[in-house]
Amino acid sequence: MLQQKIQETIRNVQDFPKPGILFKDITPIFHNQTLCNEIIDEFAKHFSTKNINAVIGVESRGFLFGFALANKLNIPFILVRKAGKLPFKTMAYEYDLEYGRAKIEMQVDEIQKDWNVLIHDDLLATGGTAEAAAKLVSMQEGKVAGFAFVVELEFLQGKERLKRYSENIFSLVKY
Amino acid sequence: MLQQKIQETIRNVQDFPKPGILFKDITPIFHNQTLCNEIIDEFAKHFSTKNINAVIGVESRGFLFGFALANKLNIPFILVRKAGKLPFKTMAYEYDLEYGRAKIEMQVDEIQKDWNVLIHDDLLATGGTAEAAAKLVSMQEGKVAGFAFVVELEFLQGKERLKRYSENIFSLVKY
Repeated sequence: MLQQKIQETIRNVQDFPKPGILFKDITPIFHNQTLCNEIIDEFAKHFSTKNINAVIGVESRGFLFGFALANKLNIPFILVRKAGKLPFKTMAYEYDLEYGRAKIEMQVDEIQKDWNVLIHDDLLATGGTAEAAAKLVSMQEGKVAGFAFVVELEFLQGKERLKRYSENIFSLVKY
Repeated sequence: MLQQKIQETIRNVQDFPKPGILFKDITPIFHNQTLCNEIIDEFAKHFSTKNINAVIGVESRGFLFGFALANKLNIPFILVRKAGKLPFKTMAYEYDLEYGRAKIEMQVDEIQKDWNVLIHDDLLATGGTAEAAAKLVSMQEGKVAGFAFVVELEFLQGKERLKRYSENIFSLVKY
């Protein structure tokens, strides 16, 4: 079963990025292309009937399965990056982190009006970054068609925060 | 012809990331999955006979075609990231930039002894980052099997710097 395979492959790293946090390291997944293909297929299967027009991948781990999924669905892939990284005209959204603030950007010509856009990141924690990506979609008059994550940390209740943008929040494994 | 298609898709952005630089923006490539597949196939064709054991992608744009290529060749994909981003045990290499220094890292268990490792990034400029990735390959007793770039800025002579690690330096478009 895919969920179990992913759980067995993820590495638990204690005290990263800071003391007291048990980090779910997905790096070993990328050693196993059979597993990668199963993940890509599972995302594709879940969203293939939703008339998705484009996939957003959030820098930088969201670039990996995000681009692979867009490629599989044969639709545009959109890069959402940390502030200052994207050339050309961009729109930005700033949001709160546990300590301080963060800002992400997208180029201004990425989304056509009323496009259904899927937002992907590797991990759903508090949902702050995914929500910021959803705001960028709205700023370009697109619609959030759903969210796709490899890992969801349920106890942080990120889903509650994202529900208002789309009810379609799909995570492969939950902790 | 692939080279021409890529050149027509790349966007020139004046004065990014700083005044006087004409930036080659590859973002529009990701809107066209047919073109993306042609790029992945071209890389795969060039390296498929070289007994590559793994592909390195350098954070963060190198994650895009790097992972896609590893997936196509059905071999492990290795993440090389900026310092402090990777959990678990890492090895680091620090190198000079035009102004200041940079440091990249790889997890310690990525490469098996004598593996032939292909290093991918989107852009070859001075070659500092690609060279640092080559050093990380050597530190884990792997061999550099080659370098793959979408864009090469020939006038910066990065190739001269990389030749000592592998003669197989493959770029799809050159400026």
